[in-house]
Amino acid sequence: MPPGHVAVNVRAASLNMHDVWTLRGVGIRAEQFPMILGMDGAGVTDDGREVVIHAVIPSPGWRGDETLDPRRSMLTESYQGTFADRVVVPEANVLPKPAALSFSEAACMGTAWLTAYRMLFVKSGLRPGQTMLVQGASGGVPTALVQLGRAAGLQVWVTGRSEAKRALALELGAHAAFESGARLPDRVDGVFDSVGRQTWSHSLRALKPGGVLVTCGATTGDATAGELQRVFFCSCASWVRPWARAANWPTC
Amino acid sequence: MPPGHVAVNVRAASLNMHDVWTLRGVGIRAEQFPMILGMDGAGVTDDGREVVIHAVIPSPGWRGDETLDPRRSMLTESYQGTFADRVVVPEANVLPKPAALSFSEAACMGTAWLTAYRMLFVKSGLRPGQTMLVQGASGGVPTALVQLGRAAGLQVWVTGRSEAKRALALELGAHAAFESGARLPDRVDGVFDSVGRQTWSHSLRALKPGGVLVTCGATTGDATAGELQRVFFCSCASWVRPWARAANWPTC
Amino acid sequence: MPPGHVAVNVRAASLNMHDVWTLRGVGIRAEQFPMILGMDGAGVTDDGREVVIHAVIPSPGWRGDETLDPRRSMLTESYQGTFADRVVVPEANVLPKPAALSFSEAACMGTAWLTAYRMLFVKSGLRPGQTMLVQGASGGVPTALVQLGRAAGLQVWVTGRSEAKRALALELGAHAAFESGARLPDRVDGVFDSVGRQTWSHSLRALKPGGVLVTCGATTGDATAGELQRVFFCSCASWVRPWARAANWPTC
Amino acid sequence: MPPGHVAVNVRAASLNMHDVWTLRGVGIRAEQFPMILGMDGAGVTDDGREVVIHAVIPSPGWRGDETLDPRRSMLTESYQGTFADRVVVPEANVLPKPAALSFSEAACMGTAWLTAYRMLFVKSGLRPGQTMLVQGASGGVPTALVQLGRAAGLQVWVTGRSEAKRALALELGAHAAFESGARLPDRVDGVFDSVGRQTWSHSLRALKPGGVLVTCGATTGDATAGELQRVFFCSCASWVRPWARAANWPTC
Repeated sequence: MPPGHVAVNVRAASLNMHDVWTLRGVGIRAEQFPMILGMDGAGVTDDGREVVIHAVIPSPGWRGDETLDPRRSMLTESYQGTFADRVVVPEANVLPKPAALSFSEAACMGTAWLTAYRMLFVKSGLRPGQTMLVQGASGGVPTALVQLGRAAGLQVWVTGRSEAKRALALELGAHAAFESGARLPDRVDGVFDSVGRQTWSHSLRALKPGGVLVTCGATTGDATAGELQRVFFCSCASWVRPWARAANWPTC
Repeated sequence: MPPGHVAVNVRAASLNMHDVWTLRGVGIRAEQFPMILGMDGAGVTDDGREVVIHAVIPSPGWRGDETLDPRRSMLTESYQGTFADRVVVPEANVLPKPAALSFSEAACMGTAWLTAYRMLFVKSGLRPGQTMLVQGASGGVPTALVQLGRAAGLQVWVTGRSEAKRALALELGAHAAFESGARLPDRVDGVFDSVGRQTWSHSLRALKPGGVLVTCGATTGDATAGELQRVFFCSCASWVRPWARAANWPTC
Repeated sequence: MPPGHVAVNVRAASLNMHDVWTLRGVGIRAEQFPMILGMDGAGVTDDGREVVIHAVIPSPGWRGDETLDPRRSMLTESYQGTFADRVVVPEANVLPKPAALSFSEAACMGTAWLTAYRMLFVKSGLRPGQTMLVQGASGGVPTALVQLGRAAGLQVWVTGRSEAKRALALELGAHAAFESGARLPDRVDGVFDSVGRQTWSHSLRALKPGGVLVTCGATTGDATAGELQRVFFCSCASWVRPWARAANWPTC
Repeated sequence: MPPGHVAVNVRAASLNMHDVWTLRGVGIRAEQFPMILGMDGAGVTDDGREVVIHAVIPSPGWRGDETLDPRRSMLTESYQGTFADRVVVPEANVLPKPAALSFSEAACMGTAWLTAYRMLFVKSGLRPGQTMLVQGASGGVPTALVQLGRAAGLQVWVTGRSEAKRALALELGAHAAFESGARLPDRVDGVFDSVGRQTWSHSLRALKPGGVLVTCGATTGDATAGELQRVFFCSCASWVRPWARAANWPTC
């Protein structure tokens, strides 16, 4: 085990869209195989600490925000992933598991929830009492956004393509759910769009003057014609489902 | 004259791209004519004050940033413009002309320079010592950006389509000038793009991770396929050449 | 009635510490009398609109944040107050009463709650999940802070001088209540101090590195020796119980 | 040499007030001796790189801003200092020396200049064209502030206790120099105070409504009665001459 690293005996791991992209061969090169998938997980260290794993690993000597390190890595990129009995990561990449969370719950608190947290609480600048629109009702980032937004005192609206998805969002705390592309009762203070092509136009039309649109990728493809992936890339350093970078790049 | 208004005897006025768009019939409806053009100007009030005119006029009772007022107006939209002997504006829309500026100079300090100021000093978050790229070397906003950036201690790079334009930028203070679309020596901290379709892709590729792209419109058309005008619109409340709204919408 | 003004038939008004100070002769000069007290209230306009009154009134022509206007006024300073059947204010100083609030509730949403709102959501930069300490458990600003912080997903700690005050804070949503000056279980991310002399030292000791202290005045006197009132003054433009200005002055 | 560390052959070192405090026994305990003084320096690594040394060293595994690490160290605290032929620091604490700077110049770019840089460009929020007041005209932080402020397009005013000090400030680029405590021609947008007791009151009186006061310590003692050192401490994690923490704590 390299110095400064720790082994975690995995008790639970969770699946991200990023893993599916990797399976499809996106964002990985042949010479990186064999690669164990799984970015997120929770478990127990050999000395008995219950921990959650953080998937983003800066290069040696990097200081500051690791998501801005051009040479940063992630589990399943150069480090082996969490779909295993044991996973080895730098000591700084394990954090104490909150006692109130089960291992399964904690294993879901990684990529999707951190992305949602950063979009909402670091990037958007929204305040309690304002209205946020979440495009998509059932994905990892959208469901995290709904729950975080509700807990933070925001008015939460979602769009979903099916009644089942919209019902899920309402159950998770959304105040209102609309069909995708629906005309909304009012303009909103912020939009959170991880969908891309299918929703981008609707997202922009939904905003008040001075509103904020925060994106973290485009699961349905680029919004228009190939450039917006670069928007995401340059501010996110990742092509799909990144670590919650927003359209407001300044403090990325 | 309406209460709270003041008449200015115009000594100098300046021409904006906005006026050209208006002449082409963009952003104005037939029932608004006759309309005197000219958004910017400087002159003398009847009581002898030397003043500069500010072109953005909020609706009655509006408080806060007037550029976010959905019902705000501008000279040449509902108010008659500055290409006239006298122009009448609300008292709050005249400001003392700095003694160091001639009337001609002061008349240029409006739309283009305020846009550039806001892009650079309010929206970008760039700091002295960082590198900024200005797309375009000879327009109103780009030439203002070059001069403001140089005066503020930034490293200023520009792109220009002709040698004459690039020479102008260097004369105005740019540290380096490149052909449009050229590969740059290094990635930059911020890009200022008022060009749109022709430069958008280059702008995004030029940024460091965490860099900022600030846009104020798209003089060559939408970057990709019609949506980015909405980006500008929603954050700018104006279709072309707005009051310096940035890609970082949160505080627009 | 001056142009641009509106009369409100008062249905409910609320009492602020500011009124008590005025009664004691603080912050008012003899030539301002007679003066009806009462900064906050709610009522009905002659044309039937149910409204809440906003107490801060900028000088004519002022644009931007009215609390930074050096010539701004407030109800009970140059405008007559709300402890009356009718009160006349600029049209921009009445806002629609939310239907969910009674007149009595709405009449309390003014000075104290706006101060608390601004301290917490505009100035502090705290995020959901962080811990805030409120010095004082029963005053107008502290009780508003407790309720706003709880609704916004923060961990809320308060200090109170008596068991009854601490019980009130817990009832309003505080997660924990401590005796004034007590050693806390952990350092906090932010402290909200409207008390001054009696709590200032404790407030500073309670903070994590990088934590934030937000103050809006000093009901028990200056923290140390007369200077901190200036801190408040320069950032608040008011001597006591101001409009929620924080120790972080930059964006005041 | 510990892993991840590098030895620098010192070519130049500079003296900070911090070293003088250490000599006086302030901020250091007997068991830390022997301790070589000197926080700042520049030199050449064994493999021939010309480097500047950064004095703040986070604890192992710390991520993010090292000045907020409660267990961070500095040269002369647990690491031996630069007043030596060779100094050993973590690899991340050496940065390439800019070719345009001599070793002597580069050796001065550490503590004082980084403090000034952070006060002005990270904490103050001031913009080019605004007016800043620097309390003190000849110390390390004040002289750096004057030069940085001038290069960044600000209007720079200083106060100094002697004509010689004021002449130095003017020579370094200040637009105006005043006697300590003098009434200024106008209120300023920001004040930079590293003096403390002797200037604090004047600093607060000098500010416009909404202005910002940034402090990094108190070389003449606490402003009032012992508490303000805590202000500095909690936001600076250092008792004297810290790494430029401001009165605006939120993002410290």
